[in-house]
Amino acid sequence: MTVFERLKEAAREDWTRYVDHAFIRRMEAGTLPEAVFRAYLVQDYLFLIQFARAYALAVYKSRSLEDMRTAQTTLNVIMDEMKLHVRLCERWNLSPAALEAAPEHQATVAYTRYVLDCGLSGDLLDLHVSLAPCVIGYAEIGKRLAPAVDAAADHPYREWIGEYAGACFQEAAGAAIAHIDRLAERALTARRFDELVGIFAKASRLEADFWQMAFDIAEERRNDPAG
Amino acid sequence: MTVFERLKEAAREDWTRYVDHAFIRRMEAGTLPEAVFRAYLVQDYLFLIQFARAYALAVYKSRSLEDMRTAQTTLNVIMDEMKLHVRLCERWNLSPAALEAAPEHQATVAYTRYVLDCGLSGDLLDLHVSLAPCVIGYAEIGKRLAPAVDAAADHPYREWIGEYAGACFQEAAGAAIAHIDRLAERALTARRFDELVGIFAKASRLEADFWQMAFDIAEERRNDPAG
Amino acid sequence: MTVFERLKEAAREDWTRYVDHAFIRRMEAGTLPEAVFRAYLVQDYLFLIQFARAYALAVYKSRSLEDMRTAQTTLNVIMDEMKLHVRLCERWNLSPAALEAAPEHQATVAYTRYVLDCGLSGDLLDLHVSLAPCVIGYAEIGKRLAPAVDAAADHPYREWIGEYAGACFQEAAGAAIAHIDRLAERALTARRFDELVGIFAKASRLEADFWQMAFDIAEERRNDPAG
Amino acid sequence: MTVFERLKEAAREDWTRYVDHAFIRRMEAGTLPEAVFRAYLVQDYLFLIQFARAYALAVYKSRSLEDMRTAQTTLNVIMDEMKLHVRLCERWNLSPAALEAAPEHQATVAYTRYVLDCGLSGDLLDLHVSLAPCVIGYAEIGKRLAPAVDAAADHPYREWIGEYAGACFQEAAGAAIAHIDRLAERALTARRFDELVGIFAKASRLEADFWQMAFDIAEERRNDPAG
Repeated sequence: MTVFERLKEAAREDWTRYVDHAFIRRMEAGTLPEAVFRAYLVQDYLFLIQFARAYALAVYKSRSLEDMRTAQTTLNVIMDEMKLHVRLCERWNLSPAALEAAPEHQATVAYTRYVLDCGLSGDLLDLHVSLAPCVIGYAEIGKRLAPAVDAAADHPYREWIGEYAGACFQEAAGAAIAHIDRLAERALTARRFDELVGIFAKASRLEADFWQMAFDIAEERRNDPAG
Repeated sequence: MTVFERLKEAAREDWTRYVDHAFIRRMEAGTLPEAVFRAYLVQDYLFLIQFARAYALAVYKSRSLEDMRTAQTTLNVIMDEMKLHVRLCERWNLSPAALEAAPEHQATVAYTRYVLDCGLSGDLLDLHVSLAPCVIGYAEIGKRLAPAVDAAADHPYREWIGEYAGACFQEAAGAAIAHIDRLAERALTARRFDELVGIFAKASRLEADFWQMAFDIAEERRNDPAG
Repeated sequence: MTVFERLKEAAREDWTRYVDHAFIRRMEAGTLPEAVFRAYLVQDYLFLIQFARAYALAVYKSRSLEDMRTAQTTLNVIMDEMKLHVRLCERWNLSPAALEAAPEHQATVAYTRYVLDCGLSGDLLDLHVSLAPCVIGYAEIGKRLAPAVDAAADHPYREWIGEYAGACFQEAAGAAIAHIDRLAERALTARRFDELVGIFAKASRLEADFWQMAFDIAEERRNDPAG
Repeated sequence: MTVFERLKEAAREDWTRYVDHAFIRRMEAGTLPEAVFRAYLVQDYLFLIQFARAYALAVYKSRSLEDMRTAQTTLNVIMDEMKLHVRLCERWNLSPAALEAAPEHQATVAYTRYVLDCGLSGDLLDLHVSLAPCVIGYAEIGKRLAPAVDAAADHPYREWIGEYAGACFQEAAGAAIAHIDRLAERALTARRFDELVGIFAKASRLEADFWQMAFDIAEERRNDPAG
């Protein structure tokens, strides 16, 4: 069993709340309101910037060239993904200017800065475990939602699901799982496993809050269209 | 005019939303529900731990002995304040064990880790500006609420207000204002001022969200007493 | 006048001691002992690893996508340069295994960790100024030594000089100069300029010590071939 | 056997070269030239500033209040020690102004920034192991040199030796040994032990270089009294 599988099992409840959030279930059903998805897209753009910083931090914290190259590859993938993200946003009528101007929501600040602080206060394994819900979780979600897209030719979230269900992202997630195993071989003890479960569970909760945020923003806008 | 005054003026709306939040107005009136205050106290304890880390970071980032000693003094004050906080909590029937066991709320994570990241990605001035809403804001709030306590012998929040209205905390806030001015003499430009306004406004919003969190937690508990 | 030119003028003596060190003068003349160059090559490989970490740190510390992309580009260049460096070393009979096994010399530790600490204790401008002697200095040295190579078909250091005199590296140095100017527009004050001169001068001295180290290592080896 | 004892055994050669350096042997014999000791004192003052920053970093990196308080205590001790150090320097005719004006030597930069980088790239255990040669090593040296002071009423280094042989510093070293054991209980694996040996050996070498630096500075001054 991989360390990731063990973490997931130990933090089952928080993990489920994240990957099985209403945002995901309604996206799968194609009934996620467009306003919610758009709110998510904007914050996810701001998220990606911090996410890239986290992988730059992983390069900085690496103590072997192999670890450096692994983190560098992901950094480059994310920096490219941001360009794709801008295009995806444009198709949902969100201009680059709108993305840049959007204020970071509390939920975006909380997860991203938590990850960065995990990385600086802990070691490389802490950092990668705090990042796991995002990179590995999105792959799991993508895989789970792929059949819904296959079944509905006009699925509104085809593109988003396709990206995370795709071979490229699945492979990145597989590499992340293997990397955590390699780092764990070097530094995992029973006590640290408990601490890592704490980090993993907290990061999963912050990810679930991130989905919830999209509903909250859309709700606020409905109540106060000028806001 | 101090740099702090200029920041407050430039971020007036966010500042007001923070120092004039319902939490503060109802505390002043003595009508803040006890459950809300207790929820706040628990998260504030967790906040203080991160706050101490931020001042340790300020010691690390200092480039003069004077700056190091300034930050060291505050670090020691906060570490002592935590003991007082434990006593205050006990009087509100919150045991040390309950404090330790409480999970950090998203709002607590967001503000504290934002401050730490400001400090690591920016310079010492960025760090102290991100901390200003807390240390200087609490002093401003304390001063404003002091008359309410003088007027009501049995004011339920006498102790909390007294701490922040007291000479010791007022002096610490005055020192923080002067320290920002000293750091600004060295490094402030027009462009940086705009950036600092951004940091200050964001930190003020995250502080306002921190008050709001206390209401939200109390509300959730009421709806789900077992939660 | 660029900020880099102003720094160079203000730290003229330290700068000259670095770019006009006996190592450079004897390399130009083709009389630098091979043992000295080989000692340099090994430590320079270890230096590059830390140098890559410094640019990863610059990505982490960036507050605009533009700054992130600038640092990311340099990070990728350095990670590629390391592969070239391994090939160069092989031609001088230094195997990858020998490179990996070599202990970092004090001079290598001093300059690289000084740069990393400048970056973490200061802001992005501090970091880039501490890196300037390396990236911009090597370009200046390359340009100055290029005629010596043109004049001697069998110049022993043709390859090394060619790399730094080449268009690719010259362009990178030009970009670094322009980047410092952009960062300075945002954050430069008279007092900070004095501090930056301090950082620049110190980094230049540590670079000069790096050349000197190569002579010292070769000398030690001659006295103690088993060491 | 404590982790510290195990590290010492595994890095025996580097450790011996440090604690048994000519600087220590000649100090014990009372024959260490005054010029060498004065050169050491100046750099040691600059060292202490960085050392204080390292303990501030340890506070920042701590994940329990207990770890925070342990590091905070040492930080406060060092900040006080700096005042004592200024007095000691004055007795050796080194004014505070001379201390402030002295440039950091390469050896000072190398060890101090290496420690800070260990702390930021690794975890709290890495940081404390990189600090061990200093705090625990000085206690070991103080204890070993104490009889020499007892035997010679006019021993020129009575004060310095007395400080490190004294109960206060011995206790601090004992606490550091125990703290490393506590951190190791949580996070030590066989592979990490090998890495920690690497850090410990390197830090010991950089400490030995620090003693050597004092001789080098004195030698340079003799050759170039104006320098």
